[in-house]
This record gives sequence, structure tokens and C-alpha cells, in this order.
Amino acid sequence: MLVGLKNEGNVGAVARVMKNFGFNDLRLVNCALGEEANKRAMHAGDILASAKIFSDFESSIKDLDIVVGTSGVDSGAEKNYLRHAISPEELLKKYARFRGKVGLVFGREDFGLLNTELERCDLLVKIDTSPVYPIMNVSHAVAVLLYVLRRKSKKVASRKPEAMEISELHLAFGELLDLIGYPEHRKKNAKVMFRRLVGRACITRLETTMLIGVFRRCAKSRGGFDEHKGEH
Amino acid sequence: MLVGLKNEGNVGAVARVMKNFGFNDLRLVNCALGEEANKRAMHAGDILASAKIFSDFESSIKDLDIVVGTSGVDSGAEKNYLRHAISPEELLKKYARFRGKVGLVFGREDFGLLNTELERCDLLVKIDTSPVYPIMNVSHAVAVLLYVLRRKSKKVASRKPEAMEISELHLAFGELLDLIGYPEHRKKNAKVMFRRLVGRACITRLETTMLIGVFRRCAKSRGGFDEHKGEH
Repeated sequence: MLVGLKNEGNVGAVARVMKNFGFNDLRLVNCALGEEANKRAMHAGDILASAKIFSDFESSIKDLDIVVGTSGVDSGAEKNYLRHAISPEELLKKYARFRGKVGLVFGREDFGLLNTELERCDLLVKIDTSPVYPIMNVSHAVAVLLYVLRRKSKKVASRKPEAMEISELHLAFGELLDLIGYPEHRKKNAKVMFRRLVGRACITRLETTMLIGVFRRCAKSRGGFDEHKGEH
Repeated sequence: MLVGLKNEGNVGAVARVMKNFGFNDLRLVNCALGEEANKRAMHAGDILASAKIFSDFESSIKDLDIVVGTSGVDSGAEKNYLRHAISPEELLKKYARFRGKVGLVFGREDFGLLNTELERCDLLVKIDTSPVYPIMNVSHAVAVLLYVLRRKSKKVASRKPEAMEISELHLAFGELLDLIGYPEHRKKNAKVMFRRLVGRACITRLETTMLIGVFRRCAKSRGGFDEHKGEH
């Protein structure tokens, strides 16, 4: 929900980022709206077109179970209870399993939410910003908040190599060390380092196959090596 | 780092959100810049004014230890290794203690990063968006990514390799592929895969040195190879 935005470009940008993160219930309370908003919304014109328009804050939140305000300022001081805010992550933790209607309210570009509006909020959220320049563009604030709160989509996992293939990779690396006459006392370290590297990288099947290919090819293409073995 | 942005409003918006989250090293490669950028930057005009301007991608990343590309598309399919991406949170986890210079690269509004640019990236990050409308405004993407990355760990990291050492590692791997007669048409893929593997693993200096040693030793110890080169 956007309250009192004067820059319609911001309204359009908010519509776009809502669609990016799978949200669609946009409510506008006394916001500018027009051609520029449509332009900035890009492919989220439908979100703008179906936005609910209100002329006062109270009626815009009537059907909501929880109203979450946003603030560019967190006094920190408990005394200023009105502006005492939690982080987006804390909000997510608190409301992840909540089944009611939660509304996120973003205020004016210059003054944010008025005290009377803040008072009506059940919770206040503040994005942790630099003290040097804490005031974010409203659509950026929406982007960050919706990103944290977005619905988890099901990701297709990339194919992971089987244990056997990884063993083969380590075997091939070990054989390579033998073949090139890698110093005996450093072999173990090298193998462990290589294992950790591969483990941390969470190697894919394609990468495993590629590396095994390279190592085996190194070994094979140097048939002449065995003859020189005695030199070491 | 922004590459090829045509809309200077976006450039300004990025400067603003950088300042919001305490970042200041902005690099522009062939980006629009002017009055509108300054307007949108609001109180982050200093970030714009001190931005480093480049006319080609390669020179803009020369001094970076790790180059992180961003993509609006994650193919999911492992086959398209070029666009295989991790999440901002995974990036944070991997590089929280990294002491080198990490560059985040954002591409054109319409085409994103070109394949030649993606190939040069050590890692690729993708923000989890709705499949209905996955393409975010670039300044929104920057906002989300910098929000996730903003907290810097103060702990001392294990020694990280310098950019030069990592380049040397990739050079050594490339030379090895040449030496063993790795199929020409698969060389590029193998190099990019190796680069991504190393990037995801957040390789240490010791591991870098060890691998360079192994690859160079492979090359050197097969002196006989050159004589057989004609066979390939």
C-alpha cells in the first residue's frame, strides 16, 4: 500500500517490483497516477490497472488483519515507541505462518508516514541502511522488503554428480600427481586441498566430467613420461 | 559496476541505493550519464561524481579479484553452465570473509550481460523472482543485492589469493588444455566451467598455488610432448 506518493514514476516502479516478486494487491491512497506510472511499470501494467484507489488511509486498511508500516527512521530509543521498528527478516519470521491479510504501508517520498498513520500500524519495519544516507527511494524499499518476504518458488536443482563420479575425479587427480612426479611429501596436502576446493564449490556433474577428462587426457597424452620416471 | 545502461535515471538510482547501503565504488562501462542521473541520485551525487568511467569491460575489471555477474535468467538446466547462478545469500556466505576486491556487474536494461562478459565472471548471481515476470529494473536488483551483502564480517579471513594469482591459475589451466590437445571446440566451455568452479569454491591462496604448481608441472614434465605435437 502506497500513501501520498507524488512521483508517479515511483508508483509504476513499485507495481513492477511487486510483479517481479509475485505480489499483486496494490492499494493507493492519494497517489499520483498517469502515463509515467504506466511507463515505469513496464510489464506490470495489470497491477496498476487493478490497483485499489482510496482517498483516506483508514478505509484502505479496513479489511487487513495486520498493518505493517515502514519507516526510514528508527529512533532506537525505546521512548519513541512510535518509531521502534523490527527488521524485514524478523517480520518474515513472525508472520511466515500467519494466514490473515497483511498489508505493507509505504509513505510519502518526503515525509514518510504521518504519526496518525504510524499509530495505526501493528508493526513497524525498518530496512537497515547506512547512517550517512538512510533514506531510500520508495520503490527500492519495496524491492528489498518484498524480496525478503517473497513466496518461495520451487527451484530446479542442477544435477549433482554421484558419489562415484566424485571419487573418480579424486582418483584421477591422484593419478595425475603420481604421473607428474609431484613431490611425495606434498601429495597428501594437495589431494586434501583439491577435495576441499571441490567440496566448497559444490561441483556439478558437468564440471566433474570435464575435469576428469582433462586429468585423464593429461595422463594419456604423455605416454613418454614413464620412460623418464627414473630421473626423479 | 554497470555495463551499457541506456537510461541515465537508472544510473542515478543505482548511485543512490549504493549510498543507502554504504557502498561507493561505482564503475560505469558505456553508460548514459547526465542531468537525469544526477536528479535521481538525490543525495548520492558524490557517488556519481567519483564514478570510474570505462569504455570497455575488460579494463573495468582488471584490478578485481572476483567478478560477480548478475543475470535475470537462470536456465536451471545445468547444460547452460554459462547461466548457472547462485542466490545472493549463497554469495554472502561464500564471500563474507573474503578480503579481496569483489565487483558486482549489472548489464543492459534489455539484453543484460553479453555472453563474452558472462564468460569472464567468476560467479553468477540471480535474484529469485516470479516466473511470471522475472526481469527486474536494474536499480531494484542492485537494491536487493546490496541489501543482502551490506553486512560485512569483521573477522580476519584466511589468506586469499590476489587477482594476479587467480589469473595465473586460469592461464595455467588454459595452457594445460593447449598442451594436452584438448578439443578446440570444447576449450572455451572447459575454461568457463573451471572459472566458475574456482569462483564458487572461494579458492584460497594455498589452493591456488598448489593447482598452478600441478598444472605447470604437468606441462613441464612432459617435455616429450612438443615433439609429438604434429600428431594432433
